[in-house]
Amino acid sequence: MKVKGLMRFQAPESLSEQIAQHLGQRIITGQLKPGERIQELKVAGELDVSRGSVREALLILERRHLIEIYPRRGAVVSQLTPELVNSLYDVYGELLCVLGKRLLERWSSVDASGLLSRLKELEQRVEQHAGDAELVIEAGFELMRLAYRQVDNPFLEETLENFRPAVSRTYYVALESFRNGYTHTRDFFVSLAKAASAGDSQQVDQIIRDFAELQRSQVLEVLGEQSEAQGR
Amino acid sequence: MKVKGLMRFQAPESLSEQIAQHLGQRIITGQLKPGERIQELKVAGELDVSRGSVREALLILERRHLIEIYPRRGAVVSQLTPELVNSLYDVYGELLCVLGKRLLERWSSVDASGLLSRLKELEQRVEQHAGDAELVIEAGFELMRLAYRQVDNPFLEETLENFRPAVSRTYYVALESFRNGYTHTRDFFVSLAKAASAGDSQQVDQIIRDFAELQRSQVLEVLGEQSEAQGR
Repeated sequence: MKVKGLMRFQAPESLSEQIAQHLGQRIITGQLKPGERIQELKVAGELDVSRGSVREALLILERRHLIEIYPRRGAVVSQLTPELVNSLYDVYGELLCVLGKRLLERWSSVDASGLLSRLKELEQRVEQHAGDAELVIEAGFELMRLAYRQVDNPFLEETLENFRPAVSRTYYVALESFRNGYTHTRDFFVSLAKAASAGDSQQVDQIIRDFAELQRSQVLEVLGEQSEAQGR
Repeated sequence: MKVKGLMRFQAPESLSEQIAQHLGQRIITGQLKPGERIQELKVAGELDVSRGSVREALLILERRHLIEIYPRRGAVVSQLTPELVNSLYDVYGELLCVLGKRLLERWSSVDASGLLSRLKELEQRVEQHAGDAELVIEAGFELMRLAYRQVDNPFLEETLENFRPAVSRTYYVALESFRNGYTHTRDFFVSLAKAASAGDSQQVDQIIRDFAELQRSQVLEVLGEQSEAQGR
């Protein structure tokens, strides 16, 4: 089976990890909707893999907060609730700020011009592919990875990576509903590069905070509209 | 299989989780020392379990940053380096502050008097058992669990629980070397209760920060002395 895995630079993933990424991507992009059941047997048939591998993949997806597994009903795509979104951004925003802060502290010893030119590339990619949510989200995470390499904090990296599927999902919701999300992401890259070049740690902190808060509020707005439309 | 740590109120742990906790506790308390090899076969024999269960336990311990697994040498207790300690406390301290902040925000709707009386119990336990590092560390984490239940943020809880083994290990180092660590832990509980009762969110933040920073600096001091003694 060959499925689209996002972390192409890494060692080959286990089969269950590949299945998890395949299903995960379908949840992130809304092809599998909240409340929708994921049937082990059906997935195994479709992908021509063993049921055991699918079961393992579902456990991975549960740890990533993309599905819930119930004793009788089996796996169900998790709901995006305001509580979940707030919980996620409460922690995620803070960790991004830690990453930014530590990066700025090391700014004099990092390859700043290399980093800035990569950031410029990402900015252009977002500019050219506005409308392609998956690609823009990927650019955002690539920036995060660039920062990891400089900051070298395994606890921070691991935690942010754990949040990545859940954040991808909410980011996708925001980008699909707010066309200006693409401009915001590009502007985020531009202003971040500027503040980092100036060594302005406080400004970096504020830019990251604003970006995370904007995303949070956009997702919450979409959820609010959805629940209104459903008359809940 | 559950990846969470010592949450005894939960469902019974799998065998490999139990083995991981057993070995983990020996690493945390320094009975297994940094650089020491852990031999799969030997552990399997001692505990009368299968090699496969031990192997799985070792993978759990690797994820918890307590051991490193090398292709040929096998599992080795990880070194406590200043870099690792700084990485850990950079993230851990920040997350504890998020927990404190969110708890204070909900203070009016939580069972404050119940919480404060539990805190009082913990304070007395630390008072009575000063010198018993494991018990004091456990009291600290029990406070964290009390806060989880009120704050109800699965991302935060999961992340803090993931850090727990690594933090237990550094906390142990601090308590073993600084007898005043016990007094500090008790004082931490007392001042936290006071600031929370007063609804003073800024004070709570500062108390948590100071506590985490004190622990960090104590651990770093011990590591500095050790490396000096070894003439490194």
